[in-house]
Order: sequence, then C-alpha cells, then structure tokens
Amino acid sequence: MNVADLGEFPLIERLRQIIGVNCPDLIVGIGDDAAVLADGPDTYLLATVDSHIENIHFLPFLTTPRQLGRRALVVNVSDIAAMGGQPQFALVSLALPAYTQVTWIEEFYKGMRGAADQAGVVVIGGNVTRSLGGINIDITLLGRVPHEHLLLRSGARPGDKLLVTDRVGDAFSGLQLVFNPRLAVDPIVRETLITRYLEPEVRLREASMIARSGLATAMIDVSDGLSSDIGHICQQSGVGVRIWADHLPISPSARQVADAMQTPALRLALDGGDDYGLCFTVRPESVAQLQNAIEQETGKTVTVIGEILPIEQGNWLVLSSNQEIPLESTGWQHFQSTNGQSPRDGKQRV
Amino acid sequence: MNVADLGEFPLIERLRQIIGVNCPDLIVGIGDDAAVLADGPDTYLLATVDSHIENIHFLPFLTTPRQLGRRALVVNVSDIAAMGGQPQFALVSLALPAYTQVTWIEEFYKGMRGAADQAGVVVIGGNVTRSLGGINIDITLLGRVPHEHLLLRSGARPGDKLLVTDRVGDAFSGLQLVFNPRLAVDPIVRETLITRYLEPEVRLREASMIARSGLATAMIDVSDGLSSDIGHICQQSGVGVRIWADHLPISPSARQVADAMQTPALRLALDGGDDYGLCFTVRPESVAQLQNAIEQETGKTVTVIGEILPIEQGNWLVLSSNQEIPLESTGWQHFQSTNGQSPRDGKQRV
Repeated sequence: MNVADLGEFPLIERLRQIIGVNCPDLIVGIGDDAAVLADGPDTYLLATVDSHIENIHFLPFLTTPRQLGRRALVVNVSDIAAMGGQPQFALVSLALPAYTQVTWIEEFYKGMRGAADQAGVVVIGGNVTRSLGGINIDITLLGRVPHEHLLLRSGARPGDKLLVTDRVGDAFSGLQLVFNPRLAVDPIVRETLITRYLEPEVRLREASMIARSGLATAMIDVSDGLSSDIGHICQQSGVGVRIWADHLPISPSARQVADAMQTPALRLALDGGDDYGLCFTVRPESVAQLQNAIEQETGKTVTVIGEILPIEQGNWLVLSSNQEIPLESTGWQHFQSTNGQSPRDGKQRV
Repeated sequence: MNVADLGEFPLIERLRQIIGVNCPDLIVGIGDDAAVLADGPDTYLLATVDSHIENIHFLPFLTTPRQLGRRALVVNVSDIAAMGGQPQFALVSLALPAYTQVTWIEEFYKGMRGAADQAGVVVIGGNVTRSLGGINIDITLLGRVPHEHLLLRSGARPGDKLLVTDRVGDAFSGLQLVFNPRLAVDPIVRETLITRYLEPEVRLREASMIARSGLATAMIDVSDGLSSDIGHICQQSGVGVRIWADHLPISPSARQVADAMQTPALRLALDGGDDYGLCFTVRPESVAQLQNAIEQETGKTVTVIGEILPIEQGNWLVLSSNQEIPLESTGWQHFQSTNGQSPRDGKQRV
C-alpha cells in the first residue's frame, strides 16, 4: 500500500505509534500546532516545522521570492502564536537546484528576515543542499510560552463559544482566481485576494492577548481549512460543535468569487485554509469581555461562529434555512487533495 | 549568477549577511555544528538541522529504509555531540512521493526510533507532505549542554594537538566500492566498508567525555571530509595546522580500496567524510591525560594527527617523505561536487 492509498491522517497515526514514547519532558507531542517541551521553571519551549515545496506549496511563477521568504516564516510564526507563545529562533533548511539564481535566494532571505524582525524572531542557522527536483524549504521555529498562557487544541469544553479573529475564505478565494483566471471579478478584488493568499497576516498580537487573558480554552490557526481546523479542536478536545453558517465572517470579495464560481461562499470559507487567522474557544460568560478587550487594543472584531457540544451530539453546520447538516472536515489533506488540485499550504503534524 | 557558479561557501556568506542580526540570546549562530542559544542559568540550548535527499544524500537501491532512518537521525546526533551536548528532541519533516510505500516509511521510522532510543532522543513531531520529486528528509535536533562543557570550532590555539577518535576514510572507501563495483577487494572488506558508510557510529559517549574533561579547546565531527572539517576549525579559530600523513589512522580495508583504485589512501582519508568520528584539539600538556582517560573508559584509542599553528604559518600536510605540501580542504561542497559525483552527506551550516 502506498501513502496515497492510506491517506495522510492514518499514516500519521501509524508513525505516531512507532515513535510513541513516554518522556516527562515532552508535555505535548504530535497533534497540536507545535510540540511543547519542558523548559525553565516558568516556561515551556515550543517547536514546530513546516515545508514549502515548489509546485505544491508555492508556484514560482506566482510568488516573488521575497513574498515566499516572508510566507515560509510566518506560517511557522502562526503555529507558535496559536499556542499562545512568542516565537524566537528559526532554522532554515533549503534544497536548491543548481540553476537557482543567487538573487532569488537573496530576495527569499530578505523576505524571511523582514518577517522575522516583525515577529521578534532571529534566524540562527540551518542547512543548504542541492536538489535534483525543485526548491524545498523547511523552516523550524522555536518559541517559548509561560506555563499559564499555553493554549492547546485539546482544551475546548461543551458550552464554550467558538470564535475567529479574521475573515475566512479570502486566501482560498485568491487561489481560485489564480487557477481560474477567467473568473469574472473586479480586478481590485482579484489583486487583493491573491495578495491575501501570498502574504498572510499572522495574528501574533491577538494570539498573545487571547493567551494572556486566561479566558480562552483552546486555540488553533486557520491553515488547513476552517472545517478541518475546527475538526482538529473537536478531535483533540473530545467534543462536538455547532457552526452557524450565517455567522461566518465572509468578505464581499470572497462572495464575489463564489458567485463567479457558482459555488456557495460557505464552501470557500469552510474548505479554504491559508487565512492564518486564529480560531479559539472561550467560556460563554467570558466572550464579551474578551471580544471587547481585543477590539479596544487592536481595533479588531472577533466573531462568534459556533458553540462546542458534548461529543455524542456530533459536528453540525446550521444553514441560513435553519437546516442542520453534518459538518465535514473538508480541508486540505496531503496525498489526496480533497479540495482540488490547487497548491495549498496544507500541513499536518507527524 | 546561479548557485553552482557562486559556490556553496560564498552563498552562505551572503545569506549570513542578510540575516546577520545581533541578539543577546544567540550565543553562536552560523559557522558551527549547531546553533547555541541562551537557555537556563547553567545550560545552553543547541539546535541543528540536516537533510537527506534521495539520490543526493542517499541511494534508495543501496540503503534499507531502516538504515536510512537511523542514519538521518545519527548525523544530527553527531552535530550535537560535537558541541559537547546531549541531544534531546527531534522534529522530522518528510516530503514523500504519493507512490511511497507505507511499509517503507514505517521501516524508516523504526530505524529512526532505534537510533533515537540509543542516543536518548525523543521524536516530538514534525511534518509530512507530498513531494513531486523524490524523498526529502529534514531532521531538526535540539539538545542541551552545560555552559562549561560547550566546545566550539573556534577554540583551537597554536600549540594545541589535533586528534581524531576514529579511523578516517572507511565510509568514503565504502562509497567508492558502491560506485565502482568491479574494484578488486575482498568481499568481507567490501561489505564492512559499505556498512561503515550506511551505518555511521556516533561517538556520543566519547564526545561527552572530551567535553566534560575540560581539556579540549575545539571539536567538530568528521562529516564533510577530514581536510574540510579541519579547515573549518582553522577558519573559525583563526589558526593554521600541520597534519602528519603517517599519523592518520587509516584501516587496512581502506588501504585495500585505495590500492585497487590506484589512489593514495591518504586521499581517501583526507577527502572522505561520512565517518562521523570526532576531530578535536587539546593543549599539548593534556593530550596524554585525555587519551588515557578515553582509552580506560571506552577502550578506544584516540590518535594525534597534527598540531595547530599560528595562522600566518598556514595549513600543511607532512608526507612520509617529510616533504610538506599545502593542506587543501577538498571535502564535499554542494553545487560543485569537488570530490566526484558520488552522493555524499556533505553539509554546511547556513
């Protein structure tokens, strides 16, 4: 059997069993945005790695090397942020075809450096090697988080509200426009959405506020696709969920793409990842307090999109018609491309 | 200009300038076996990453997946060991073609797990993604070292003696036998040397002894090629070196390969890397003490192969004839393959 037949998640489960060791210094291993390790008396060390592979995670004709360098770093920053942590140190492993232009790599590094400076990250080293295929970029990011601010995927409890910090579906809509250039949308909308895909914003400040507030119970970044990412919270927390379709913050631009595609905007919002906002759960009595605090400090509206249910009640999506349908996790999976042929930033921790 | 024209080391220097930031928590960045980071009051955190790319760093027809999993981990363990550190946590990033057999990956993980257990390492997570080319493996390894045991490449001083823990050239000789199957050597020699290439031994215990002794001034692992690795110590320490060819511990097996190739065994020993022993410097008055201590505890003979000179005296190789010739660093460089077309484990920190 090959990996495409088995599928990504069953493969990860098998590998987890092979490496599954008990170690008191490993607080959280496979299954969250980053691994959590024992560190100082008050902090945990966080560690995560993510890949950008040519023609799978990025298209050389679409992205500038500077955008790519920025993006390769920020998707990792997003993982550390989603744990409530402060990213600190990056290791960069590059495999490059011999014909790669030196200016390309320099621009890539400048983009990475800019994003690193913005996030308070220092690039500490790495590895460069030759590639026989395309460009392959792996960035490992280390960070730290005070014990009391650590937020896992596994903390959601029935009754909690589910919130997102950002509009969902913009990045994925941008990607649709890349692959379907004849879709009839406003040129400014086109440019804006494609840039949303190429230059994701990471909510490091909001993540830190949410973690420090002590009011959130679980957090994840929206990378695989909103429905998938919610599914990760449900699976790790052992809970169900009810999402209200009408509450999803979908931009008019994404709706324009959905209309042009003759697809429900809901699908772009639920299937699409790459937005790199935060999805988190909060005890119901604390929602208003946290919403207000974030809005006051960042001017940002965070939106309640659903509520956590006991696991036996399952995962549901409430449509505008009030009809409830099963919520399927239809985001990106490697080896199976469940949402099309488009290159996506899908990732899954092994 | 492309990377092949520029060459690996000038490329790294350019990238170093782009990312070159001052950060008080980064004790040692680019230019050693691992990055050294501020950690607890008594320890440093060490971090390193290394790649195994199909048909560059490994040949799928030659290595079993179990051997490869072991090797991919131990080359990183070797880097942490060469800093005097104890490796702790590994992150594994895999890019796999969709046709990769699940049993292949499982075997790879079993090999990695075995090596991890042996070195006291826990695999804490990682990333798995699809590859359009071959298999690409990146392992990031974290470790820790007490402040007083840290050994850098940069500590060698004129007058120090240069020592190695292991025979040099065996692994490279094994690789020559892979690429030149008609070379006339004893079948047992063939099998032994190829295994030495595929299953490198890491000298974690010896490295720890050397570091704890407080008698060594610099250390590196023999990975790029002995002459290259010595060159790294000289460059980082700002010193020259004199190597005595007759003192190099070359095995009768490697000599048999050299004879069959009609090449001086010296070349296999100096150019070849992949042996993963340790090369280190010691104040002359402490050499005997450290040699005895290591031999007593591990039964292992460590060999003096040269001495450190003031930088203005340069880098020299003393032949059997007593003739001195310039010591060139002729080990592996990516993009230029200075020692042939053979896949090698060459690496260079960026």
